[in-house]
Amino acid sequence: MSEIQTSVSYSFTMRVHIENKPGKLAKILNAIADEKGDPGAVDVVRVEGNYKIRDITVSARDENHAEAIVQSIKKIEGIKVRNVSDRVFLLHLGGKISIKNKMPVDTRDALSMAYTPGVGRVCKSIAKDSEKAHTLTIKKNSVAVVSDGSAVLGLGNIGPKAAMPVMEGKAMLFKEFADVDGYPICLDTQDVDEIVRAVEMIAPGFGGINLEDISAPRCFEIEQRLKKSLDIPVFHDDQHGTAVVAHAATINALKVIGKNLKDIRIVIVGAGAAGVAIAQILLDEGVEDILCCDSSGIINRDRMEGLNDSKKWIAENTNPDNLGGDILDATDGADLLIGVSGPDIIPVEAVEKMAEDPIVFALANPVPEIRPEKIQNIARIIATGRSDYPNQINNVLAFPGIFRGALDARATDINEEMKLAAAHAIADHIPDEDLSEEYIVPSVFSKQVVRKVSRAVKEAAFRTGVARKARP
Amino acid sequence: MSEIQTSVSYSFTMRVHIENKPGKLAKILNAIADEKGDPGAVDVVRVEGNYKIRDITVSARDENHAEAIVQSIKKIEGIKVRNVSDRVFLLHLGGKISIKNKMPVDTRDALSMAYTPGVGRVCKSIAKDSEKAHTLTIKKNSVAVVSDGSAVLGLGNIGPKAAMPVMEGKAMLFKEFADVDGYPICLDTQDVDEIVRAVEMIAPGFGGINLEDISAPRCFEIEQRLKKSLDIPVFHDDQHGTAVVAHAATINALKVIGKNLKDIRIVIVGAGAAGVAIAQILLDEGVEDILCCDSSGIINRDRMEGLNDSKKWIAENTNPDNLGGDILDATDGADLLIGVSGPDIIPVEAVEKMAEDPIVFALANPVPEIRPEKIQNIARIIATGRSDYPNQINNVLAFPGIFRGALDARATDINEEMKLAAAHAIADHIPDEDLSEEYIVPSVFSKQVVRKVSRAVKEAAFRTGVARKARP
Repeated sequence: MSEIQTSVSYSFTMRVHIENKPGKLAKILNAIADEKGDPGAVDVVRVEGNYKIRDITVSARDENHAEAIVQSIKKIEGIKVRNVSDRVFLLHLGGKISIKNKMPVDTRDALSMAYTPGVGRVCKSIAKDSEKAHTLTIKKNSVAVVSDGSAVLGLGNIGPKAAMPVMEGKAMLFKEFADVDGYPICLDTQDVDEIVRAVEMIAPGFGGINLEDISAPRCFEIEQRLKKSLDIPVFHDDQHGTAVVAHAATINALKVIGKNLKDIRIVIVGAGAAGVAIAQILLDEGVEDILCCDSSGIINRDRMEGLNDSKKWIAENTNPDNLGGDILDATDGADLLIGVSGPDIIPVEAVEKMAEDPIVFALANPVPEIRPEKIQNIARIIATGRSDYPNQINNVLAFPGIFRGALDARATDINEEMKLAAAHAIADHIPDEDLSEEYIVPSVFSKQVVRKVSRAVKEAAFRTGVARKARP
Repeated sequence: MSEIQTSVSYSFTMRVHIENKPGKLAKILNAIADEKGDPGAVDVVRVEGNYKIRDITVSARDENHAEAIVQSIKKIEGIKVRNVSDRVFLLHLGGKISIKNKMPVDTRDALSMAYTPGVGRVCKSIAKDSEKAHTLTIKKNSVAVVSDGSAVLGLGNIGPKAAMPVMEGKAMLFKEFADVDGYPICLDTQDVDEIVRAVEMIAPGFGGINLEDISAPRCFEIEQRLKKSLDIPVFHDDQHGTAVVAHAATINALKVIGKNLKDIRIVIVGAGAAGVAIAQILLDEGVEDILCCDSSGIINRDRMEGLNDSKKWIAENTNPDNLGGDILDATDGADLLIGVSGPDIIPVEAVEKMAEDPIVFALANPVPEIRPEKIQNIARIIATGRSDYPNQINNVLAFPGIFRGALDARATDINEEMKLAAAHAIADHIPDEDLSEEYIVPSVFSKQVVRKVSRAVKEAAFRTGVARKARP
């Protein structure tokens, strides 16, 4: 299991004063090796009398491991560790994004054109025709990355300030992958009405709203209400981003094993934000036999009482034979098992009971619903949310291209057709002849995927009539 | 008067196809000169058969003037005008600011540090100690530029979308002059309670709030309530930015004529956002004799009924002898007359009735309360809001440095002492020996002013106990 691998996400840089005697640096590197740390750059900072001062970067497994490495170096004679900097924290100092002016405003002429008095004519033109905001302001390319901090990564309800680093990271991905200007807005409220109203109020300056890390079932109502009230796309990435990529992986996995979407049974474990959205996109694609499980077992129409609205929707739209039972009943003869819940909650027997050529997507992060090691001889295809296994199902494949396409079409919505188009663009990126059990999802660093997704999404926006721009 | 001057804020670029015969370009330039346009760059784009294709840039007085110039060029034989682009609109295409990543996220390692899984540790650290948001997120350097579009420039209530170009321009000035990351937030509401709540909700990601172009008297209540509820600085620039620079100009004007702040009578014409804030800062500085006029004349304590809260505040805090009357009564014997209302509303007689060495600040834009030409032989010192007269009173001298200082001190507030410190820093930038009737305000393009203002404001934050950072 990868817990024993070192990672740059636990890397640190030590400033060490090293006595000028032969073999001292080697001793440090030996100590790092003995502790199974992974040394990176070794720089000379300066020489001070009898000491050479160096910065040594080391990747560790976790914080305790990093501490152990430092302690073991401190014990070496003639070595002084002066400072240990956590590289991840260093990188976060002052935040990860900034504002860039598209032109300087350092002369009277520039000021007269970008600000008063010149700007007045641009304002008047938008006041006369508000559609012009889409061409003459940042609305053209801006997406608010909105969270209330209620369900951040695997950390839970950590609040708006603590959610900021994730939303800044998301904004970075928007920029890096699709040249979209994302801006993090973390809201100091967890009340559904207030969140809806806050987003409505800030909407004039944005061309799209990306909801992020808002806990279920509040996220469903928030997204639905905003989709109705706003004339710009609203997209809850934890739902639809995950659903789009999971669907792309499904398409390609079925190609590998030679089964057909309409014939298979799919079991979804977890009825939160992602689970509901995955069920939705699969239904949109024509899948007929879906069972969803929550902690009480298969969701069916005998359990309606006490179900929240989204689970009621699941009960009404999945499970055609109204089956009941636990997760083992659900996977009996199933073709695809998708976990979107929590660590280690799927037992090996559940996979053993599946039909021939079982496909398992265990998407909980960082610890999947079932460890791939345990089922590598049972499941034919395995995908996870992690980068250290094959077939990483990562939203980065979807959201940048989806918003790029929506903004380019000046779309009023990101509808189901646009999501399906994105899923197929991701799946089709891998030529059939290259597909294999270990390669059903493209690399997240392929910018070609973003371009293909954005083109497909834009085309779907034109086709379904939600584009405000004329088809070129 | 400067109405007849051409301006880049009305400049355009024409693409013209010019027949290859001698003297054709000269004819175009003659036509521009005949129409009194101001030619700029003349570029060759390419040669096409018998035609040379050029881009010619011309500054005009206004849109009609630009049209007249184009029409006159179209009449020249052998010239075809193919395209006329308004340079100000060209510059606004797609908006004026964008997001910049501080580091690329194009490798697995970068992704692991800036986003998951590395970011999780940073989030946890902020969840444990929310103060860390000021160092580990963009909150450290970010200011929301918030408007409801209710009082934009001289354009009035044009709404949030049409206000965006101004707020983007403001964000540019923050970046250009003080390296502050301003982000425009234009709110789709003009309800005081909703605006207050919206700003409270988006506050977690920002280190300061710059309110902008919100109409009086709503702006007073909004600012006061937000100052109470938020732990970051809230500053309505139309009030306090103007007040700070007007006060700096006052200090220097009095040095030139040799009068003392405590001895003079100041008349403020206009009791809107700027008027109230100017009265406030002058009272803070110890000025005793201030009269404020609104459209009904001098505000006094016999008129309390029917006055809004801010005018009531004026009645209670100015006008020690409770004088009444009109603007001519007010300026009788006054030393300084400050106009912050509308075009041409101060008659020449009002200035004629002032004491010796009259000082007049006529700050309405673009047309001042009284044209400087009319009083150049009466007033000893004149300042306006315009760049084409001496002594421009421009907020750009104040707000970038004020927020820079407040952010650097991690201040919880921008209090009166910080505003006074800013005013003195601006005033003191001009050495006494350089002061003259035509030079009481520094150039807006002096970045040294920003540095001086930010240092003074930061120091005042430490002194008054609103700095969260320890004094270095």
